[in-house]
Amino acid sequence: MTLTVFSDEYFMKEALKEAKKAFDADEVPVGAIIVCNEKIIARAHNLSERLNDATAHAEMQAFTSATNYLGAKFLEECTLYVTIEPCVMCAGASYWSRIGKIVYGANDEKKGYTKIRGKLLHPKTKVIAGVLEKECGELMKEYFKLKR
Amino acid sequence: MTLTVFSDEYFMKEALKEAKKAFDADEVPVGAIIVCNEKIIARAHNLSERLNDATAHAEMQAFTSATNYLGAKFLEECTLYVTIEPCVMCAGASYWSRIGKIVYGANDEKKGYTKIRGKLLHPKTKVIAGVLEKECGELMKEYFKLKR
Repeated sequence: MTLTVFSDEYFMKEALKEAKKAFDADEVPVGAIIVCNEKIIARAHNLSERLNDATAHAEMQAFTSATNYLGAKFLEECTLYVTIEPCVMCAGASYWSRIGKIVYGANDEKKGYTKIRGKLLHPKTKVIAGVLEKECGELMKEYFKLKR
Repeated sequence: MTLTVFSDEYFMKEALKEAKKAFDADEVPVGAIIVCNEKIIARAHNLSERLNDATAHAEMQAFTSATNYLGAKFLEECTLYVTIEPCVMCAGASYWSRIGKIVYGANDEKKGYTKIRGKLLHPKTKVIAGVLEKECGELMKEYFKLKR
């Protein structure tokens, strides 16, 4: 049996670090990383407030950053770790990026892409949900508790 | 009766000019503009190849550009003119931008957002389809004819 520190939980903790940066910057606390061959090639967090751009979600930046890093337009061999279930826009972006796998933490009961009937993801993209679900969700709850 | 040159066709022709720039740059020929009070505040065309970014659709850039121009995060008073029916990603982005109205030219039978069952757009966003449909669609056909 081969042991590796590079579990889904390991990488989700890295995505959570990004979410916490967003939280500290008074942004909706969502964090994302993209991993290729057990290496983190992109880190991002929501920047909607700072960039004054409602589309500046963590995942959008992570996709662009990862393709920049790889010099490749598609991310078939990569995994997106994101603390919250992607929205429709980010699911659509994941389609175009052809990301190989998506691992997310907490569900987004209102805006999550799984609430839409229809095939939003690329047919080859695998999905794992619920990794560090509680921690990922708590940060969002805490943020909106402070805001409302 | 008040006559105005600023019809949907007028603005769609401006979006088509953008699509033609994409065509000439060997990009999938989609163009978009955003109009606020009869003024064009953003122009964009697909840059997926040049930016090596499969998410660099005309609409995504137009949304970001318009919010930058206005210094506002939302586009409730604005209209997006786009030559081809938006995909799911761009429909999702339009939701976050809260765009007031979307006018598009040709349908996208494969990747258009209307092929997905579910409410992708913001509830306040109005939609007009089929403006200069033929011209908008022809440019795409011509492009893909050269590519295939």
